[in-house]
Amino acid sequence: MARNTVSQVVPSPAEDAAALLKAFQGWGTDEQAVIAILAHRDAAQRKQIMLKYEEMYNESLMHRLQSELSGDFERAMCHWILDPVERQAVMANAATKCILEEYPVIIEIACTNSPAELIAVKKAYHVLYNCSLEEDVAAHTIGKLRSLLLALVSTYRYDGNDVNMGLARSEANIINEAVRNGTTDHEELIRIVGTRSKAQLNATFSCFKDEHRSSFTKALPRGTDPNGYLRALRTTVRCIADPNKYFGKVLKKAMCESGTDEDSLTRVVVMHAEKDMKDISGAFQKRSSVTLEQAIATETSGDYRSFLMALLGS
Amino acid sequence: MARNTVSQVVPSPAEDAAALLKAFQGWGTDEQAVIAILAHRDAAQRKQIMLKYEEMYNESLMHRLQSELSGDFERAMCHWILDPVERQAVMANAATKCILEEYPVIIEIACTNSPAELIAVKKAYHVLYNCSLEEDVAAHTIGKLRSLLLALVSTYRYDGNDVNMGLARSEANIINEAVRNGTTDHEELIRIVGTRSKAQLNATFSCFKDEHRSSFTKALPRGTDPNGYLRALRTTVRCIADPNKYFGKVLKKAMCESGTDEDSLTRVVVMHAEKDMKDISGAFQKRSSVTLEQAIATETSGDYRSFLMALLGS
Repeated sequence: MARNTVSQVVPSPAEDAAALLKAFQGWGTDEQAVIAILAHRDAAQRKQIMLKYEEMYNESLMHRLQSELSGDFERAMCHWILDPVERQAVMANAATKCILEEYPVIIEIACTNSPAELIAVKKAYHVLYNCSLEEDVAAHTIGKLRSLLLALVSTYRYDGNDVNMGLARSEANIINEAVRNGTTDHEELIRIVGTRSKAQLNATFSCFKDEHRSSFTKALPRGTDPNGYLRALRTTVRCIADPNKYFGKVLKKAMCESGTDEDSLTRVVVMHAEKDMKDISGAFQKRSSVTLEQAIATETSGDYRSFLMALLGS
Repeated sequence: MARNTVSQVVPSPAEDAAALLKAFQGWGTDEQAVIAILAHRDAAQRKQIMLKYEEMYNESLMHRLQSELSGDFERAMCHWILDPVERQAVMANAATKCILEEYPVIIEIACTNSPAELIAVKKAYHVLYNCSLEEDVAAHTIGKLRSLLLALVSTYRYDGNDVNMGLARSEANIINEAVRNGTTDHEELIRIVGTRSKAQLNATFSCFKDEHRSSFTKALPRGTDPNGYLRALRTTVRCIADPNKYFGKVLKKAMCESGTDEDSLTRVVVMHAEKDMKDISGAFQKRSSVTLEQAIATETSGDYRSFLMALLGS
């Protein structure tokens, strides 16, 4: 975890800014020096470095990194140096623009943050884009996919652990009805998934499994899903039920297919390096013959690999 | 405005608590003394008095007021002494329990607070009721009324003033389509009203009026509305377009019908006395032959009247 890789004693922001400039100058960039500095500073330190760099050299560190670095490494670094809340707003905005492919980003942000964290992301979204995340999600979707995603990004869930088991049983039955009817009437299902607390939803999912001998996600109809609604619903349930397992699966899928899905790999590592990467890494290993570090080392190369490994603390 | 009626120099919370106890003791309560103290303290001072009273006399001031006072005066005072944010959470919760009649309370809270104020109310709701406002609104409604109210309480609108006139024109047309089709397909309409910023919505409502020679609320179909959706939609548009005019109308209606609607009268005066009562009072007078104070003086009596007049600064 990057949190553990932050040096106990770090240079001042001015010294770091000067070292970065030195790494940029001359013939070719010293990427390893950039990684050695930025991968080992926490969010507050990175912010100070960005401010100091701009103050000292009258140019944006972000723009300089964009011109000095390239490819997956550049994209990963440019996301990494952002403030974590702002980074999520930027990622959500990019996802709204190709939402049929990128809906998982929206769902991850809506469902794996705490309610207070989600509000902070939405506040940052207002500042960056002069509109709401709700507006952009709604404007780029239709039908049930819109109903689901809009409910997820809008809701301010109760965050407590108390659970009403009677309610869980009755809402497990409502979900079962909806699942049996295919996708004709999912209004109640979306209402439940979109408003109940995570603790309550997990109780409901358990009741569903107990009574219907199948998990909710497995009971969902397979087959045609042109709108992406059913896939989005599965992603939602997984994010709420067990975020570590979900992100472990995303990583496994990103490194399993022919050709690595660097965007997904970068997203999970950069967004979680300072937060819950250790748990995700554990969940990954449960379903893998190799550790996350080994998998990333095999599937990636060059500065991009060095950077991800540094973020993982390897 | 009560804000103006707070004395420049107030007694200490301990002195106020002692004076309140004195007003409660003996044969009958001295209601005028209670009003003289509590109507002339701001929210922070009232909170201090409540804490001090409980500390000094080992009983809740709220419970004591409930046992000492009665009727509309008691209800008004017990709402008044609450923290303004908590008070809205309490009022919203009560409204969810008879939502077909009380939906205006939900809409007022969702649409006349700033986005940040609405979040504060929803946070207080979590603390008081161990669930979300979204859950309770959704659980007590169905159909389009649910879609509308749930969108309104959930959304975290952009709060800026910038307006996209092209978008306003195109969404005014979408609204026109929906209005022409009766109530068959209002999904897009609810999406617009539920996600756009208030500034953007007001531009859209203006475009609607310019192009269709009728305000949006007047263009809405009249007639059967068993679910209350159309009434709720009208209330929503009025709250967003001109909250002062809306509350002025609520007050006028509360004092116009045979028999006064004390609940609505209390709600508007208590919720707005410390905030924007002067503007509401101005809006009331535009449509009335008498001032708000004169109307309230005529329509109410006793301690209830004295209390409301004190809150209005008369």
